Amino acid sequence: MRRSIATVSLSGTLEEKLAAVARVGFDGVEIFENDLVSCPLSPAEVRRRVTDLGLGIDLYQPFRDFESVLPDVLERSLRRAERKFAVMADLGVDLMLVCSNVSPGAIDDDALAAAQLHRLAEAAAAHGIRIAYEALAWGRYVADYTHAWKIVESADHPYLGICLDSFHILSRGLDPAGILGIPADKLFFVQISDAPPLLMDVLQWSRHYRCFPGQGGFDLIGFLEHVVGAGYRGPLSLEVFNDVFRQSDVERTAADALRSLIALEEALGQRLDAHRTVVRERIALATPPPPVDLSGLAFVEITVDPMAELAAEQLLRRAGFAHVGSHRSKPVRMWQQGRARVLLNRTRPWGDDRPRGDVVISAIAVESADPSRSAERARQLLAPAVPRSYGPGEADLFATAAPDGTEVFLCRTDSADWLGDFDPHPVADLDGTETLTGIDHVALSQRPYHFDEAALFYQSVLGLRQHDNVEVADPYGLVRTRALTSAGDGVRLMLTVPAIGGGRLPETAHFQHIAFGCSDIFAAALAMRIHELPALAIPGNYYDDLSARYDLDASVLDTMRAFGILYDRDSKGEFFHFYTAMLGRRMFFEIVQRVDGYDGYGTTNTPVRMAAQYRHMAMAGLTW
Amino acid sequence: MRRSIATVSLSGTLEEKLAAVARVGFDGVEIFENDLVSCPLSPAEVRRRVTDLGLGIDLYQPFRDFESVLPDVLERSLRRAERKFAVMADLGVDLMLVCSNVSPGAIDDDALAAAQLHRLAEAAAAHGIRIAYEALAWGRYVADYTHAWKIVESADHPYLGICLDSFHILSRGLDPAGILGIPADKLFFVQISDAPPLLMDVLQWSRHYRCFPGQGGFDLIGFLEHVVGAGYRGPLSLEVFNDVFRQSDVERTAADALRSLIALEEALGQRLDAHRTVVRERIALATPPPPVDLSGLAFVEITVDPMAELAAEQLLRRAGFAHVGSHRSKPVRMWQQGRARVLLNRTRPWGDDRPRGDVVISAIAVESADPSRSAERARQLLAPAVPRSYGPGEADLFATAAPDGTEVFLCRTDSADWLGDFDPHPVADLDGTETLTGIDHVALSQRPYHFDEAALFYQSVLGLRQHDNVEVADPYGLVRTRALTSAGDGVRLMLTVPAIGGGRLPETAHFQHIAFGCSDIFAAALAMRIHELPALAIPGNYYDDLSARYDLDASVLDTMRAFGILYDRDSKGEFFHFYTAMLGRRMFFEIVQRVDGYDGYGTTNTPVRMAAQYRHMAMAGLTW
Repeated sequence: MRRSIATVSLSGTLEEKLAAVARVGFDGVEIFENDLVSCPLSPAEVRRRVTDLGLGIDLYQPFRDFESVLPDVLERSLRRAERKFAVMADLGVDLMLVCSNVSPGAIDDDALAAAQLHRLAEAAAAHGIRIAYEALAWGRYVADYTHAWKIVESADHPYLGICLDSFHILSRGLDPAGILGIPADKLFFVQISDAPPLLMDVLQWSRHYRCFPGQGGFDLIGFLEHVVGAGYRGPLSLEVFNDVFRQSDVERTAADALRSLIALEEALGQRLDAHRTVVRERIALATPPPPVDLSGLAFVEITVDPMAELAAEQLLRRAGFAHVGSHRSKPVRMWQQGRARVLLNRTRPWGDDRPRGDVVISAIAVESADPSRSAERARQLLAPAVPRSYGPGEADLFATAAPDGTEVFLCRTDSADWLGDFDPHPVADLDGTETLTGIDHVALSQRPYHFDEAALFYQSVLGLRQHDNVEVADPYGLVRTRALTSAGDGVRLMLTVPAIGGGRLPETAHFQHIAFGCSDIFAAALAMRIHELPALAIPGNYYDDLSARYDLDASVLDTMRAFGILYDRDSKGEFFHFYTAMLGRRMFFEIVQRVDGYDGYGTTNTPVRMAAQYRHMAMAGLTW
Repeated sequence: MRRSIATVSLSGTLEEKLAAVARVGFDGVEIFENDLVSCPLSPAEVRRRVTDLGLGIDLYQPFRDFESVLPDVLERSLRRAERKFAVMADLGVDLMLVCSNVSPGAIDDDALAAAQLHRLAEAAAAHGIRIAYEALAWGRYVADYTHAWKIVESADHPYLGICLDSFHILSRGLDPAGILGIPADKLFFVQISDAPPLLMDVLQWSRHYRCFPGQGGFDLIGFLEHVVGAGYRGPLSLEVFNDVFRQSDVERTAADALRSLIALEEALGQRLDAHRTVVRERIALATPPPPVDLSGLAFVEITVDPMAELAAEQLLRRAGFAHVGSHRSKPVRMWQQGRARVLLNRTRPWGDDRPRGDVVISAIAVESADPSRSAERARQLLAPAVPRSYGPGEADLFATAAPDGTEVFLCRTDSADWLGDFDPHPVADLDGTETLTGIDHVALSQRPYHFDEAALFYQSVLGLRQHDNVEVADPYGLVRTRALTSAGDGVRLMLTVPAIGGGRLPETAHFQHIAFGCSDIFAAALAMRIHELPALAIPGNYYDDLSARYDLDASVLDTMRAFGILYDRDSKGEFFHFYTAMLGRRMFFEIVQRVDGYDGYGTTNTPVRMAAQYRHMAMAGLTW
C-alpha cells in the first residue's frame, strides 16, 4: 500500500521533514497547515520541492469546526475555503480533511451538517478537490465514524467521503466492523496511529501520547483487516501527535515510522492469509523473510580502554572465566566459561567525553539458525548495516546498529565461522571454578523517550517478544525496564530507561550489565569468594526484611547474607542472584540461578542493588 | 504546625534525604521502608543520625494489604508486624501507617477488617506503637476516609486511629466536611499533597504526578480548614510521589517542598481569620509579611560578553534606546526609552561552556512600594539572598535567585536610590525616534520539569498570579508557557519550558526575550526601519492565512506584511507585535501594542516566530 506520513508527526521545519520522509523511503505526506504557514517557500515552491524529492502530497488539513454552524459562520468558512482551495491547487493536492466540529457552539443537527458539507464539496469540486470528513473522538456531536458516514451518505456528493483514523475509532473502543458497511469509493483516506493503554482524557491522550504501530496497545491489524476488507486501496498514513517525536532527530523518527509500517503490513498480510477474507494478491504489502529461531547469545562484547581492560580481565578471571582466544587482526580477546563468552574490545576510539576506565556493552551476537535470512529480514526492516573491516579469511558477519547504539551481530556458532577469527589461547587450569553455564540476560540502557523505538526495533528485526514494563526506583530517578525474549527464552534482553529525561545522567539509564546463569548459586558464590571476586555489599536491613517476608531456612539466609545473595519468588519458582562490584561507572556482572522455571529478573531487588552501587561508587570517590 | 516530609518525596539515599530535610528546616520525616532496607545504617544508627540532625521520625510505612484477609494470611502478617515493631523501636518511631487493602483477594467485610486491625493495634500497643489506618483512593473495598473511620470506630482501640491523605480524598472528589465527624484524638496523622488536574487513572496519577501544595489544583485550604476544625494539631507531612522530584537535586526539592508548606500555612491562616471557625491562636502557622504591590519592572538586566555587547548596543540604539548611564563601580551600562530600562552587564564571568557572543537575561528588578517588606517576605519564603558587593554609597538592593537562575531585585525607583549608582551619560538627540513606553513582559526560559517550582517561587515570593498553561509547537519540540502577573498587570512574566526533557537544548526552553510596549506599532516599526533595525522576516504564507482568517483592511495587512507585524485577537481586543532579529542564539526583543485591553501574548503566532528564528540562525551558520 502507499505509505504516507503527516508532517505533524515529525520534528523540524517543513523542508527538513520533507527531506527526511523522502530519504527513508515514504511515498507521500500529509501537510499540516501550520507547517506551511511557517514556511518561507510559497505553495508552488513546496510542490516543486516535493516533486523533486519523489514524494506526493496526499492530504491537506486547513480546517476546524467547519460544519454544524450558523449560516453566517458557514459563509465565512466557505470564503476561507476558497482561499485554501487556491493554496491546494498550488500545492498540487486534491484531498482536504475536515474533522467533525468540536466547538461548544456546534449545532446538533445531522441534516444541517450534511447540507453544509455538501456545499463545501460542491465548492471543492469546482477545483477538482475532494473532501474527507472525519469523526474526532471528542467531536461535539459527531464522535463515531459510523455517525460521520451517515452524514456523508445523506449529503450524497461524489466529492465528499470519509477519512478513518485508527486513534479516533480504537481510543473510544468502537467496533471497526462497521467499516465494512462503507462503500470503497467513499473511503477517501486512512490514518494510522497506535497509543499506549493509558486511562486518561482522550484529547490529552491523542495530542501527546500517540505512537507508531506496534508501540502501543491498539488492535491495528483487526482495524486494517476491515479497512482492506471494505476495499480501501489508498494510502496508509501515519498521523502521530507525540511530544517525543516532536523533538527527536527527524530522520531517526522517520525511519522508526516506516519500520513500524512495514512490520504492520507484514502482520496484516499474515492475518489476511490466515482469514482469507480478501484477495490477498490485490494488496501490495511488505513481506520480509520471517524471523529465524534464535537459540541464545553467542557472545557479548564490552568495550574497554587499556586501563579498564585490566580490571575487566581480573573480574572475569575471578568469576571463573578463562582467556580462550585473541582475534587475529583486532585487539579483541575472548573470555569464556561454559557457553558464556565475553569479548573485550579495545579497538574503538575513545573520545575525551568519556572518563578513563569506563566500560560499556558495545555489541551482542545472537545465534541464528539462518544468519543470512536474519540479515535480509533486518535489511528489509530498515536496520542499518554497520560497515566492518575483515582480515583475510575472516568471517563476514552481518551487524546492525540498534537505536540504543548496541551493535547486533547475527551468527551461527555451530557452523563455526566466526570462532576461526580467534587464535586459541592456552587455558590455564581453572581449578574447578567453572560454575557458570551461559548468558542468562543482558541489560541494555536506553536514552530517555527512545524506549519504544528500541523495543520495536528488537521486536521487529529479531522477532523477540515484548513483556510488560516494570518500574524500578533508582535512588536518583524512576527507571522503567522491559524484557524482550526469543521463543524458548534463549535470548533475554532487558531494556532500561529513565522514566523521564533531564536527570543526573541524561544520556541513558545509568547501569548496564551481563547476567550469567548457574545451576548452584551457593557453589558459584563460594568459588568466586575463594578467588576473591569483589561482590557488591548488600545491607543487613535487606536480610532482616527478607526474613520477615519469607519463611526462608535460617542457615540458607545466613549464607545468603554472607555472600550478598538476593532472593525473589514468582508463581512458578525461586530466583537467587548476586552482583559483582562495579566495572567502571556503569557496568557490572550478575550471577543468577533460576529454580523451577522462575521467569522474572529479580527487579524487586533492583533498588537495593542500585543504592549499594551508588554508595560503592561514592566510597571509591567516583562521580556519576 | 509541625512540618514533615516523607522520604519517598525526595531523591537520593536515605542519608542524603535526611541531611537535606534537616538543612532546609523541616521538623520531621516519614521513613519509607524501601529507603531503610537499602540503607547500610542499622535502624539504631538511623535514629542517631536523625537525632543529631535535630529531626524526628513521625511515621513508618512497612505494610501493604494487612487487613480484610484470611486467617492464615493475618497470622503471617502479625508475625511480620512483630519484626517491624522491633525495627520501629530501634528507629524511635511510635506511629505505623497501614493503608487499606488493594488486593483482588481482599474480603469485603468491615467487621473482619475492624477485628484484624484491633488485633494489630493490640500487638502494637505492647510496644507503645500506634496504628494509623488510611483509605487509599484505589482500595479494594475501603477507598473513602469516612468508610475507614467507621471501621476504626468499630474496632475501638486506643492505639488505632486514622491517617488522612489529601490526595486520596480530593482525587476522588470526596467531601472533606466528613473530617469534622472524626474525634481529634482519633486523627493520628495528616499527609498533604497536591496534584495537577489530569483526567487519568487515579493510581497512575498518584504514583507519578503528585506535587507540592500550590503546584496543582486541589483545594487544600478547604481540606485543611476541616482538619484543624476537627481539632488536629499534629504534623502536616508532605507525601509526594513525583517522577521529577525523584531525580532532582534533593536540597532544591526539599526547599521547594518547605516553601510550599509555608505558603500553604499562610493561606490557611488567612482562611481561618476570614471564617473564624476555629481559634486561630491555638494553631502555629507561618505568617510572612503579605505581598507588596508591584507596579512594574524597574529594569531588566542582560548579560553580555564584549562581543555581544556591541551587537546589543546597536540593536537597542536602532530600537530607539539611549545610553543614559554607566554604573559607578561595575561594567554595567543602562539604556532607556520611555519607562523601559535595559542594563547591559559585562561583570559576570564567562565559562568556556558558553559560546562567544551569547546573551542571556540575568536579572529583573521589580518595583515594590515597600522593598524591605518584600525582602522580608522573600526571606521567610526561603528565597535565597544573593550576596552582592557595593561600592561606597551605592544602594543596597535585596536580590534573590529564582529557581531558573534569574536574579530578582526588589527596588523602589521613585525613592531614587539605585539610580544614583549610575553616572548619567549625555544623551544624543534621539531624532524623535522614541516610540516605546515601557516593558510589557519578560519571557524567562526554564529547565524541563522545574516549571512548577519556578512558578510557585514567583507566585509565593512576589505574590504574582498564575495563569493557565499554553502549549506552543516549537519546530523542535513542544513548549509550555505560563504567564504570571501582578495585580494591575504592571509585572508580566512569561515562563517557558520544554514539555519534556531530552530535546536539542536540554538545559532550558530555547528562547528568552523582553517585550516592549508601544502605543502605535506602525509608528514604532517605521521609526525602527528608518534606523535600520534588523527585524525578523515573517513568511508570506502567514499573511495569506491571516487574510483568509480575519477581515483585516487590505492596506493594513500590506503594511503588516512589509514590517513583519503579526496579529492576534481575544475576547477583549487586538494585539499587534513584531520581533527583532536574534541577539546571540537565544535572545531577542519584541515590540507589542495592546488594543482595547487585549490580555494575551500572541502565543498563537509563536510557532511562526520560532520557525523564522531557527531559519535565521541556520542562514547565519549558527548552530543551536
